[in-house]
Amino acid sequence: MSVFRFALLGAGRIGKVHAKAVTSNPSANLVAVADPMERAAADLAAQYGCAIRTIDEIAASPDIDAVVICTPTDTHANLIEKFSNAGKQIFCEKPVDLSVARVRACLATVKTNGTKLMVGFNRRFDPHFMAVKDAIAAGQIGTIEMVTIISRDPAPPPVDYIKRSGGIFRDMTIHDFDMARFLLGEEINAVFAQGSVLVDPAIGTAGDYDSASVVLTTKSGKHATISNTRRASYGYDQRIEAHGSLGAVSAENQRAVSIEVANAKGYTRPPLLDFFMTRYTQAYANEIAAFIDALSGKREAAPSGEDGLAALVLADAAVKSAAEGRLVKVSEILD
Amino acid sequence: MSVFRFALLGAGRIGKVHAKAVTSNPSANLVAVADPMERAAADLAAQYGCAIRTIDEIAASPDIDAVVICTPTDTHANLIEKFSNAGKQIFCEKPVDLSVARVRACLATVKTNGTKLMVGFNRRFDPHFMAVKDAIAAGQIGTIEMVTIISRDPAPPPVDYIKRSGGIFRDMTIHDFDMARFLLGEEINAVFAQGSVLVDPAIGTAGDYDSASVVLTTKSGKHATISNTRRASYGYDQRIEAHGSLGAVSAENQRAVSIEVANAKGYTRPPLLDFFMTRYTQAYANEIAAFIDALSGKREAAPSGEDGLAALVLADAAVKSAAEGRLVKVSEILD
Amino acid sequence: MSVFRFALLGAGRIGKVHAKAVTSNPSANLVAVADPMERAAADLAAQYGCAIRTIDEIAASPDIDAVVICTPTDTHANLIEKFSNAGKQIFCEKPVDLSVARVRACLATVKTNGTKLMVGFNRRFDPHFMAVKDAIAAGQIGTIEMVTIISRDPAPPPVDYIKRSGGIFRDMTIHDFDMARFLLGEEINAVFAQGSVLVDPAIGTAGDYDSASVVLTTKSGKHATISNTRRASYGYDQRIEAHGSLGAVSAENQRAVSIEVANAKGYTRPPLLDFFMTRYTQAYANEIAAFIDALSGKREAAPSGEDGLAALVLADAAVKSAAEGRLVKVSEILD
Amino acid sequence: MSVFRFALLGAGRIGKVHAKAVTSNPSANLVAVADPMERAAADLAAQYGCAIRTIDEIAASPDIDAVVICTPTDTHANLIEKFSNAGKQIFCEKPVDLSVARVRACLATVKTNGTKLMVGFNRRFDPHFMAVKDAIAAGQIGTIEMVTIISRDPAPPPVDYIKRSGGIFRDMTIHDFDMARFLLGEEINAVFAQGSVLVDPAIGTAGDYDSASVVLTTKSGKHATISNTRRASYGYDQRIEAHGSLGAVSAENQRAVSIEVANAKGYTRPPLLDFFMTRYTQAYANEIAAFIDALSGKREAAPSGEDGLAALVLADAAVKSAAEGRLVKVSEILD
Repeated sequence: MSVFRFALLGAGRIGKVHAKAVTSNPSANLVAVADPMERAAADLAAQYGCAIRTIDEIAASPDIDAVVICTPTDTHANLIEKFSNAGKQIFCEKPVDLSVARVRACLATVKTNGTKLMVGFNRRFDPHFMAVKDAIAAGQIGTIEMVTIISRDPAPPPVDYIKRSGGIFRDMTIHDFDMARFLLGEEINAVFAQGSVLVDPAIGTAGDYDSASVVLTTKSGKHATISNTRRASYGYDQRIEAHGSLGAVSAENQRAVSIEVANAKGYTRPPLLDFFMTRYTQAYANEIAAFIDALSGKREAAPSGEDGLAALVLADAAVKSAAEGRLVKVSEILD
Repeated sequence: MSVFRFALLGAGRIGKVHAKAVTSNPSANLVAVADPMERAAADLAAQYGCAIRTIDEIAASPDIDAVVICTPTDTHANLIEKFSNAGKQIFCEKPVDLSVARVRACLATVKTNGTKLMVGFNRRFDPHFMAVKDAIAAGQIGTIEMVTIISRDPAPPPVDYIKRSGGIFRDMTIHDFDMARFLLGEEINAVFAQGSVLVDPAIGTAGDYDSASVVLTTKSGKHATISNTRRASYGYDQRIEAHGSLGAVSAENQRAVSIEVANAKGYTRPPLLDFFMTRYTQAYANEIAAFIDALSGKREAAPSGEDGLAALVLADAAVKSAAEGRLVKVSEILD
Repeated sequence: MSVFRFALLGAGRIGKVHAKAVTSNPSANLVAVADPMERAAADLAAQYGCAIRTIDEIAASPDIDAVVICTPTDTHANLIEKFSNAGKQIFCEKPVDLSVARVRACLATVKTNGTKLMVGFNRRFDPHFMAVKDAIAAGQIGTIEMVTIISRDPAPPPVDYIKRSGGIFRDMTIHDFDMARFLLGEEINAVFAQGSVLVDPAIGTAGDYDSASVVLTTKSGKHATISNTRRASYGYDQRIEAHGSLGAVSAENQRAVSIEVANAKGYTRPPLLDFFMTRYTQAYANEIAAFIDALSGKREAAPSGEDGLAALVLADAAVKSAAEGRLVKVSEILD
Repeated sequence: MSVFRFALLGAGRIGKVHAKAVTSNPSANLVAVADPMERAAADLAAQYGCAIRTIDEIAASPDIDAVVICTPTDTHANLIEKFSNAGKQIFCEKPVDLSVARVRACLATVKTNGTKLMVGFNRRFDPHFMAVKDAIAAGQIGTIEMVTIISRDPAPPPVDYIKRSGGIFRDMTIHDFDMARFLLGEEINAVFAQGSVLVDPAIGTAGDYDSASVVLTTKSGKHATISNTRRASYGYDQRIEAHGSLGAVSAENQRAVSIEVANAKGYTRPPLLDFFMTRYTQAYANEIAAFIDALSGKREAAPSGEDGLAALVLADAAVKSAAEGRLVKVSEILD
């Protein structure tokens, strides 16, 4: 069994999650970490017994096979190119970049180099959503026709974050665009999106929406509807449902504990998990395991850079649709 | 199609329920009502356009085929005998009597006369419980092995009622004894019951329990457990579950409406229906329809007087078991 | 207590449902029925002991206060005008007409005459949906922001029906348009609709869609999404959900029985009720009761003719949106 | 922060689970492992980088603070005494011994030495059951009155295992006895148990039951009912429910994934988790964390040896009750 040697770029919140996944996988070793915050790098290096190196050192390290990129979004494309040019295999947190053109250029470099690139759409690896996908693949609902995604954050991020996020469609809905593509198994060719500011006027002032509804359509006429809001008092509301010619399959929300209290006021279950890192703990672990499997050829490195690009294109189409109040063909963005 | 001519004995709460069921059945006519409370009889007669007669008149009426007995419990056995001797078909609210000996004598009369007698164990006709029974009969759980019944009243009846009720086992658990027999499809041969006073000391002072746990066993070793209390803040808790060699089947509780409110405190569904007449509306209608079907030979008149006797015997065994703190064989009661 | 004297126009399937509701209401008498099918009229007259009259006779009958119109759609507007001119109070099955202009003219007549007109959007009277509305009205979810409606028929109607139905948006989605308006409590000002033919090509040949997704927006930015299909293998899928600033409220699907069978393949509950008349039995009874209450001034005659018009306008906007592949402002239809 | 130095006695299935919990806890180091199976010890030592020592060496090791005993049941009491005498803190898998007298002697030694002893009733640490206990402790159901436990294994263990297991009550129900005590918060004073052989006659031939129903009663009259079987086709059925003066609280069963497939046959969720190690993964991790917390004085070392004894006494009472067909007072076993 091959053991792949990893470096981690970025030792922040999500970096720690991936470090844990890498180090607990018998086919991977965490060799080095890089982070401009010395303390963050040192803590992580101490915890897992790995080296601290600069990004340039890692790119030049012969003892590194693969990197996990968890740095800020605006560094992703440059780092992907740098490490692809250095012959490393790459797992990169979504998105590759907020610019379609920049993503295309970046993917061209990766393609030229022939290195692997997997993009962190973690939700594809959530066990519940995987089971939905498996049920569809197994023919349990016949031909898939309509996907319904309800995806609501517990609370909006800080407005400062929103300003540099690319907007709700590129930051939040992008996961749902990827999920719609993943489940429908057919490319989207038209996007209609409507955005509103219902939660916090400051979000509107920042030029974004906090509530959105989206309809996606494929060439063969399949639909996906997406309902988003940045604030759900009851937790992190993450539901998907697929309807097909023979039936339907859905994934329920997740709670920390499955209890119910009954009294004169009714029967009450706890609110939902309210943080993406607890809600998707298993998904994060599974996606790194999948990347490691891809390194040894057991599966494709998917979702790929192209998947990341496709979701970004849908987000751009949604931005345009919401701004112009009209249906936007995906070809308008691609051309 | 034959139309059976009915008389109703007792125009109280449950009498009104049965009057509605009789009058809305195309195979039945409500010809007469009897009630010592003149006003109750008059109201019901006005509503349904039937005659008011005395009990003796009804027994002597050639235009009456069948009677529905909804009078106080201590009159049931006498009325059954009187109307059986008069050649009428009889539906009688449970129980036939609180004395096993009296029930036996009464059933002997009915048998001699060859008249039909159906006893009002309404729960057998609840659509949900019927579906449980049907699933068992269809082999969906294989061989039935264990039955679990959770049966809780929303609130205790008045202590005056309790005093003349025959006690919790003969008044409340008797429905569960019948359900256990109905589902297990095999006679119970031993009863263990434990009673406590946890809800209201006045119930204890009246010589009864308000909380009880029961284990029933059949000759082949099947079990049923019953959990009772006279007070459940969350409504009328009526659950049954059967476990077998290939699976299990259960019936859920019932609510007036199926909604759920989610907020920061959690996900809340309304409390349960909290009154036996709303919870078992459909069951009451179904049981009268079944009796009418029995009159035309489409089905047996079941639950029969013997079913009523068998449940009463189990109640007597439970009374003895709880009082003496020991397992009681059914044969001890029968002999 | 006043007793209102009713005539029923149309003794077909839905006419029978309303006849039962009228005759079981102590404040209403069913005096007459009209139907060109003599047998249908005779059967209903026999069952409820009412007279058979022609439509003209009923319009001229001084012993009729109110009519329930259950005739074919293309007769509704004429009948409403005729009976309004005759001074009768009117309950009419939806829709008033498939033409916005015709509906407007009809409502103008009703307004001039000052007669009451209630339109049969039965779903507003479903106990579960009423409970959702009540929860919103009680402030349980704060300010309502987004409504999600999933509304799927068990199986498509005959193509012949579809041809004269006005299309999926005017025939099926119209209920969802009304529900969205009912729950949002604010007028819709823009409609985006996408239709596809995924179920049966014959439906496409007939010029209609069998699958549709809709986004509605109000002036203040609230959204409603609607997902429709003409075929759901699992039954009549009727879910609504409202999300607001403080929480959410949803109504579950309905089954005939609430049981669950567990075995090695999993835990299975029965499919949903699969026929609108069983799914909405209580809703139909409640809406006639509400109309009778409106006659005695206890409540408004709502949903009104204007509600019917508003839903039709949304349907017309949806037709236009789907045909032209663009967002349609409601003002485009109204002007 | 203190770091406690651990040795693991027994590197089998459950030993591996505990090794993982110890090594992933920042307050614990796994220093050594002992197992007569050289391969098992070597594998575990290699995985976690710890030493291999004999049991005697570990008892004599000054660099060991605490031991986790995962050896066969019949060695538990001797090992507890040996390591208590050596001044080590002890976590021991249940049961301490199958003989009440032997347990008492063992606990006396531990008490004399003043060492800590925690017994592995893992279910107390299941997050769902902990939440039930917390809800009770928080007063959400008022005064607890009745506990219902349904506890069913997916499939019976090998008959060879059953023969040396002490029987269903000491092997399987003992978890439920502990849970009943844990939730009721009051000692049990009488036990009624009924056992049957319904699953496999070979279990009966081995002198055991495979199906059991139990009623426990406390001095104040609270009840617990337990329903056990060794075979549930639908998975590892583990439900608890507590009813009290103000309400009830229950814990649902657990599945690997929360999806539901709907088709013409109904709505189906997957079967339950079917293996105790997957069902109770988190519970095992939590209990070792709790033991480590107990070492640093943050909490009691509970469940204690006395808790283990109390559950065993209830098991002995159940054995006697089932054999003699009568209610058995706990005092009969204790005296």
